[in-house]
Amino acid sequence: MLCLSLSSFSKMTMESFKTAMLWCVLTCLLYGSSLVEAKVRHYQFDVEYIYKKVDCLDHVVMGINGQFPGPTIRADAGDTLDIAVTNKLFTEGTVIHWHGIRQLETPWADGTASISQCAINPGETFHYRFIVDKAGTYFYHGHFGMQRAAGLYGSLIVDLPKGQKEPFHYDEEFNLLLSDWWHKSAHEQEVGLSSNPLRWIGEPQTLLINGRGQFNCSLGAKFMNTSLPQCNFKGGEECAPQILHVLPNKTYRIRIASTTSLASLNFAISNHKLVVVEVDGNYVQPFEVDDIDIYSGESYSVLLITNQNPNQNYWITAGVRARKPNTTQALTILNYKTISASVYPITPPPVIPLWNDFNRSKTFTKKIFALMGTPQPPKYSHKRILLLNTQNRINGFIKWSINNISLSLPSTPYLGSIKFNLKDVFDQRPPPKTFPQDYDIMNPAKNPNSTTGNGVYMFQKDEVVDVILQNANMLSANSSEIHPWHLHGHDFWVLGYGEGKFKEEDEKMFNLKNPPLRNTAAIFPYGWTALRFKADNPGVWAFHCHIEPHLHMGMGVIFAEGVQHVKRIPSEALTCGLTGKFLISKNNHY
Amino acid sequence: MLCLSLSSFSKMTMESFKTAMLWCVLTCLLYGSSLVEAKVRHYQFDVEYIYKKVDCLDHVVMGINGQFPGPTIRADAGDTLDIAVTNKLFTEGTVIHWHGIRQLETPWADGTASISQCAINPGETFHYRFIVDKAGTYFYHGHFGMQRAAGLYGSLIVDLPKGQKEPFHYDEEFNLLLSDWWHKSAHEQEVGLSSNPLRWIGEPQTLLINGRGQFNCSLGAKFMNTSLPQCNFKGGEECAPQILHVLPNKTYRIRIASTTSLASLNFAISNHKLVVVEVDGNYVQPFEVDDIDIYSGESYSVLLITNQNPNQNYWITAGVRARKPNTTQALTILNYKTISASVYPITPPPVIPLWNDFNRSKTFTKKIFALMGTPQPPKYSHKRILLLNTQNRINGFIKWSINNISLSLPSTPYLGSIKFNLKDVFDQRPPPKTFPQDYDIMNPAKNPNSTTGNGVYMFQKDEVVDVILQNANMLSANSSEIHPWHLHGHDFWVLGYGEGKFKEEDEKMFNLKNPPLRNTAAIFPYGWTALRFKADNPGVWAFHCHIEPHLHMGMGVIFAEGVQHVKRIPSEALTCGLTGKFLISKNNHY
Repeated sequence: MLCLSLSSFSKMTMESFKTAMLWCVLTCLLYGSSLVEAKVRHYQFDVEYIYKKVDCLDHVVMGINGQFPGPTIRADAGDTLDIAVTNKLFTEGTVIHWHGIRQLETPWADGTASISQCAINPGETFHYRFIVDKAGTYFYHGHFGMQRAAGLYGSLIVDLPKGQKEPFHYDEEFNLLLSDWWHKSAHEQEVGLSSNPLRWIGEPQTLLINGRGQFNCSLGAKFMNTSLPQCNFKGGEECAPQILHVLPNKTYRIRIASTTSLASLNFAISNHKLVVVEVDGNYVQPFEVDDIDIYSGESYSVLLITNQNPNQNYWITAGVRARKPNTTQALTILNYKTISASVYPITPPPVIPLWNDFNRSKTFTKKIFALMGTPQPPKYSHKRILLLNTQNRINGFIKWSINNISLSLPSTPYLGSIKFNLKDVFDQRPPPKTFPQDYDIMNPAKNPNSTTGNGVYMFQKDEVVDVILQNANMLSANSSEIHPWHLHGHDFWVLGYGEGKFKEEDEKMFNLKNPPLRNTAAIFPYGWTALRFKADNPGVWAFHCHIEPHLHMGMGVIFAEGVQHVKRIPSEALTCGLTGKFLISKNNHY
Repeated sequence: MLCLSLSSFSKMTMESFKTAMLWCVLTCLLYGSSLVEAKVRHYQFDVEYIYKKVDCLDHVVMGINGQFPGPTIRADAGDTLDIAVTNKLFTEGTVIHWHGIRQLETPWADGTASISQCAINPGETFHYRFIVDKAGTYFYHGHFGMQRAAGLYGSLIVDLPKGQKEPFHYDEEFNLLLSDWWHKSAHEQEVGLSSNPLRWIGEPQTLLINGRGQFNCSLGAKFMNTSLPQCNFKGGEECAPQILHVLPNKTYRIRIASTTSLASLNFAISNHKLVVVEVDGNYVQPFEVDDIDIYSGESYSVLLITNQNPNQNYWITAGVRARKPNTTQALTILNYKTISASVYPITPPPVIPLWNDFNRSKTFTKKIFALMGTPQPPKYSHKRILLLNTQNRINGFIKWSINNISLSLPSTPYLGSIKFNLKDVFDQRPPPKTFPQDYDIMNPAKNPNSTTGNGVYMFQKDEVVDVILQNANMLSANSSEIHPWHLHGHDFWVLGYGEGKFKEEDEKMFNLKNPPLRNTAAIFPYGWTALRFKADNPGVWAFHCHIEPHLHMGMGVIFAEGVQHVKRIPSEALTCGLTGKFLISKNNHY
């Protein structure tokens, strides 16, 4: 394990921390601050199921090297990560997606089964090798079936190259990975979601902060109106919350990423303001808030100034928004080291804002602007696609569809198929670029019947593409949900959010001056969100709702751009399905 | 679906039966009894998870074409089965093994992951095409991870070619597939069995007859000393027992196969004798018994003469033997059509013989002799291997080992690896052919530490091989279990069973005159079982304990024979791991 990956605050004793730091300092001296040299950082990831008391109850969870969440990867911008992922599952394939890393010139390393590579078979090892070109707060997770929901995830932090400084000051940092947890296995969730009648997964049993939650108790029980008992931890419990220990009058960077399967979350620290400085690996104009909304697939850095009474401790919380909650809010403690960590805060935990106060959500989201110096969007786009998000029925099965097509991934990955011009892998007709202009987004579809498909939106290299994500009513009346859409291989500029159906004249209101660069953006109920990106990264990229059950139910599309420019796809990424057949076809006498 | 596969008695209405029979008769006329023509029978099997009330509770179970158990395959000896298996799972590979079919000249169609083929990836289809050369009662099941325990199985019945007659008379037949069922998913069972400390699967929650069992009630509750309530079925319930409807004074052939994950079973019909006539697809000297013991992997045909009072109904039962039972005995009804099927028998269900009365088990097993005319074994063997069965520890993990090696399958299948002479797939050193002569089989191993391995026992084509399976004490004192060993690609002659450690002079007692031909044979506690087979079927064949958790824990070995004679392995069986790499290696510029 590399020196920098030891900086996780989670389990390190002071002694081991000192030893690691000494080694780190010695090692880092070899790379003087003026001589910035990109490194290759090697990791071995064994993916396997482990038993863990994730939320104090015993569960099977997907772990890496025996850990859940997986080990934190830490590198400097410009470094190459060389991660050997070995599948130690029994019958399942696996892949790992490096969420937020653009995979410039390495589209085969994006870690998306059926898209960028063949799933890694049990017993096999796949070498992901890619450059982390941009500092920021990222994470990684499974991208095959619902293995993310099963627990296959971890943090990926990219620091600025040595000698470069962040555009904000902080003394120390913490890293919080937020997730949600079900007692029903992801396997069974998948089956239920693919059944007729649909068996919806329901709300999560527990919210996790760095893989730890409490199901049968609450740390804040005695301060709240709840029937849950008070949690009492002696120390050492796998499900005990990680406490953030701080000194007074310091500035802390808190990195927060959400890899929830379903939940939209609100994050707050009682009595403290948060200054948002980074979103999805991009700097933003700092702004101060009491709490942040964070959707699945998003990451934030916030600055926390420990300027409150140092003789108290404070609540840190994450709770469900945007869906009617049925899950206890996650809690841990901000401990001023001036006092014991076991001293409870004197006030109740922050109350999570009303789940359906969508105006509050929009207000927060619309405060996000790019920091000056961030690349600006091209002034015009070459192409615009409108993507209507609807819930549909296909032969009685409930699905999510985009422009009336529910994504059903092919068994052979797109990247190799397009590169080799194989015609039988996926539907060669491109999916529709828009939807009927008379579609009534405010009501359930008059004809909810839809079809499955796996066609591809093809873009020329360097085309500038506008995507208008259009939200609509679901199958039942008066319901429309938030969907966080995540694009692989790119950041995009978020040009604007609007209410109702997108109209031509809405384009006039696009923010071309300082739109935030993100890789994930929400659409709000009955509204639209406008994105722009440049198709300058040859490869095949998923663009999908980051809610795991929604993607499983077809809520995504596939973008391919300049695939003829892609070079050197490792054969390990191709040895399956029709690309495997193609590669051995000239050599089949044995 | 073919006409003959419609003869399942399970759900057919009289109308559809008549229609099918008419069509069948018309079709069969094309093949006059004198003109026996082998047919190719095509099946499409979609393997997927389905929800089913297997034992009256709702479970996820592996189904085929929406059915659990999978469809019954029915063919005539000499026919070719062409079965397209499509993997409709989400992240798991799958294969199907055709248990008892020798796969003469088609070793790649044996359906064993890591041995005969690459697992079929999600979305992919594999074509099994093989001849069923011998009439008999067989079944098929998953052979990857513990997918058999997850419910991936069904019946495969091979009839004599038209015009040929069985060596016994019967009027009609029934087909019973026995299995056991856990409420914990096979996925979680796998993880528990691979954990340290071991999480043993325990006894099954329910025993199933043709995929139906009752967990919360018993059909015989009011006749028994049980706290379970009486089952009351209105009809149509998925978990209602299948009733066998018979006419008086007829002879019925009852085909019974066991695909249990763990349980050894005893099968009986109250008041009726059973005449054993077929074992594992081979005719035996008929003998009459009150009940039969059947181990996982075995099949029997018994004749039932309906010569009892036709104004009563009778119990049919299957219950656990050989392990301390904790599972309600399975029950259904033998209904004399002279009265209503809803009339209960007047006596309590048969009592399952004492689980640890191993002498009773041996007495039954030793009654089985080949019917005259069955091929006799070669008089001498060219080679003998002794296989010691022990429970061991490897780095603290509990495993089963053979000659101190616990089988851990490679990720690339053996068949292609050996054919292409690839050296890096598995351990090239052959595993030991015997064990230390001073090993004390009556006590726990003095040094229980073992190693994993994946070496192969290599045989020349047509070598005659004797295998002595030697049982021993487990890790804890005074315990030794029954293990039913199943050989792929062959029937073997069972030359004898003995107590204690096999000694050279025991060979003198081998039965070379009329030993039964079987594909599965049990070893009894602290005893040995001697088998002989001729290595006349080029291929790579698993030989293993058919108890699913034991195989998962390493209780098996690999036999390879004359692999250089194997022809035409379809590329679909090879497109993974190092064979996939090998096949594309000459063509890797893309």
